[in-house]
Amino acid sequence: MNFILRGSVCYSKSPTELVTLEKGYVVCKDNVCEGVYTEIPEAYKAYPVKDCGERIIIPGMADLHTHAPQYTFRGLGMDKELLDWLNAYTFPEEAKYEDEGYARQAYQKFASDLKQTTTTRACIFGTIHPHSTEILMEQLEATGLITYVGKVNMDQNAPDYLCESSAAESVIATEKWINTVQSKFKNTKPMITPRFVPSCSGELLEKLHDVQEKYQLPVQSHLSENMGEIQLVQELFPQSSCYADVYHQYGLIDKECKTVMAHCVYCSEEEMKLLKENQVYVAHCPESNANLASGIAPIRKYMEHHIPIGLGSDVAAGSKLSIFYAMQDAIVMSKMRWRLVDNSLAPLTFEEAFYLATKGGGSFFGKVGSFEPGYEFDAVILDDKNLETLLQLSIKERAERMMYLADDRNIVGKYVAGKEV
Amino acid sequence: MNFILRGSVCYSKSPTELVTLEKGYVVCKDNVCEGVYTEIPEAYKAYPVKDCGERIIIPGMADLHTHAPQYTFRGLGMDKELLDWLNAYTFPEEAKYEDEGYARQAYQKFASDLKQTTTTRACIFGTIHPHSTEILMEQLEATGLITYVGKVNMDQNAPDYLCESSAAESVIATEKWINTVQSKFKNTKPMITPRFVPSCSGELLEKLHDVQEKYQLPVQSHLSENMGEIQLVQELFPQSSCYADVYHQYGLIDKECKTVMAHCVYCSEEEMKLLKENQVYVAHCPESNANLASGIAPIRKYMEHHIPIGLGSDVAAGSKLSIFYAMQDAIVMSKMRWRLVDNSLAPLTFEEAFYLATKGGGSFFGKVGSFEPGYEFDAVILDDKNLETLLQLSIKERAERMMYLADDRNIVGKYVAGKEV
Repeated sequence: MNFILRGSVCYSKSPTELVTLEKGYVVCKDNVCEGVYTEIPEAYKAYPVKDCGERIIIPGMADLHTHAPQYTFRGLGMDKELLDWLNAYTFPEEAKYEDEGYARQAYQKFASDLKQTTTTRACIFGTIHPHSTEILMEQLEATGLITYVGKVNMDQNAPDYLCESSAAESVIATEKWINTVQSKFKNTKPMITPRFVPSCSGELLEKLHDVQEKYQLPVQSHLSENMGEIQLVQELFPQSSCYADVYHQYGLIDKECKTVMAHCVYCSEEEMKLLKENQVYVAHCPESNANLASGIAPIRKYMEHHIPIGLGSDVAAGSKLSIFYAMQDAIVMSKMRWRLVDNSLAPLTFEEAFYLATKGGGSFFGKVGSFEPGYEFDAVILDDKNLETLLQLSIKERAERMMYLADDRNIVGKYVAGKEV
Repeated sequence: MNFILRGSVCYSKSPTELVTLEKGYVVCKDNVCEGVYTEIPEAYKAYPVKDCGERIIIPGMADLHTHAPQYTFRGLGMDKELLDWLNAYTFPEEAKYEDEGYARQAYQKFASDLKQTTTTRACIFGTIHPHSTEILMEQLEATGLITYVGKVNMDQNAPDYLCESSAAESVIATEKWINTVQSKFKNTKPMITPRFVPSCSGELLEKLHDVQEKYQLPVQSHLSENMGEIQLVQELFPQSSCYADVYHQYGLIDKECKTVMAHCVYCSEEEMKLLKENQVYVAHCPESNANLASGIAPIRKYMEHHIPIGLGSDVAAGSKLSIFYAMQDAIVMSKMRWRLVDNSLAPLTFEEAFYLATKGGGSFFGKVGSFEPGYEFDAVILDDKNLETLLQLSIKERAERMMYLADDRNIVGKYVAGKEV
């Protein structure tokens, strides 16, 4: 598609460079951004222009970590820490997705609500059930969003009703699922998804690495979220030097492999080194880490180490799908960490949070999350007229207010890779 | 007014007793709640019944601390700590309220947005300007909410453009304002409002105590919010043993005086003793304390000390007027404090947050914030059908989800002291 959006443009070049332009023209040619201009360049004069008036045009946001089956109990059951929370609320709910009818109804609400957010790209956990996960992918495909989806693997330390019978069985089901879905959808792709180290045997992790290599798929999992979890990993894999080392030993953190790890609240120096060397993405999920009293990840330290980072909603340990909220929480929690834990790490700025939400997380999907030339054309149009104020605000200030105050009513248009959705 | 609301009833008796009733009848007689019943008692059979169906009926909430003139810049300027934030953003904005036209426009938006929340009672700061504060009171009166409003007093350590010329001048203006407004409005009453200790001379505090005694008005101010602020108070009043002691010495924390103090992030044992002995209310403003990187107040400790507590939105250091958000933040910040600072203080529960938002803060206004017999009839009707889920939820679970997920669309009815607003 070739077209131009005109409006109040706002995008990131880097964590410290937020570019804004009043009455800017964002040019889309063959679904790719050709850049932002104050006047339409000669080459694009024939393109149709959609005038967004005073509305704000931002790049689409990336949600690097969320759990679709948990959407049914969002906003509930926040009174436990991770391992107890999984057993009390999460595993019983995820077990219901063995029923494809349940899955279809639940995932339809999830997908349609996700569509109403600023998110254009996402990494999403399903459950261990291949057919239900395929249904989730069908629903997501219908939204027009571009996503990676994982059938979850778990062969130990899970309740019987949600535990695959063996590593072999888990991998057979996973391969079968991959073969079914990998060419079935245009925008919805499979992802290798060991739940987390405690629920995966060494054999399973090893075999999943083989599958990853065979199909060249990206990987998502959880890392160093909670202190009890970290201790459990050490007990289960006593030969490992740290939590990340387990994934590394089994080839799931590796230069040959595109991996995103949720949380990373307590990464050691060694883990940071592994993340950096292998360019593993951190999916920072600040609301989730607060709700489950896990702690606050030292995001600035990871940024200083040049570890790639994006944001995650992590429903249902996070209550909301909105990445605006994740931005807000990332900032506020970085302030609390600065105040209460370590004042050598300055709080995150709005510019940094905006970067993490767009280009930071978007880069997991390629050239995504900016309006620089060559980026896939993901855009969101925001209308803030219901938030009127007597102040004359800059585009940056208006965008900052959206982070604190916007809801689905403020999102009035959305494009994914050049297509309006 | 005599009437009955029928629906899914939810209210607090105490921090640990949340009462819920399906298809309950909440009876209002002469604007006072007569209790909640499973069937309509004989004495009320003639009352009209409003059937709210599956909707949730909760008591109105109290916002014990917010700044109306700051509403114009909500969601902006969160990059500084308290004293710098006041100088950079707050004082310049408050100075604009010398212009009554500006005040009228700005306050109209504030009042109409406050009406759209669950708040039925509030303690509200204006500015130093008496006429503009009167305009704020007019706008609030029109909403039907019941509020206390303060013309702010500041005679030192404020920029020239926002500093009253002397204690005497400040008090003359305040008395004149009180005489004008105290019988002008039914639901909107004046409150003594020294901004905070740093901006008030000892002479001003002394004179404000005289005014308080003369007119028997309640008092609102700020206490121990930020470490730089606390140090400044110690420098300004070296003879005081603690920040609260300054208010105490000048009679503004006193058994004879109904006082609410915002924040109390860093109260010492001595301050807690003063608060308890004089039954001073703490207005806990968790979002504000996080946004300005002030810290996290030890609310459970205050509860254990039997200090009365309610919640405050504290716009514009808080970005949102919603007390649902204040509840959410109170819980989440108590988890972070438990995790990062002091694991002897358990995180707040949903029941406790609901209590603080309703009966806890409501009690500042009398018998307000519950559906127990004898309470003034403040009620809010919540519709959660847009948050549909496949799960069968209890009323408590539905109310908990509202705390995380509700916005103004979910608030479909509101009564203040028996009157629909």
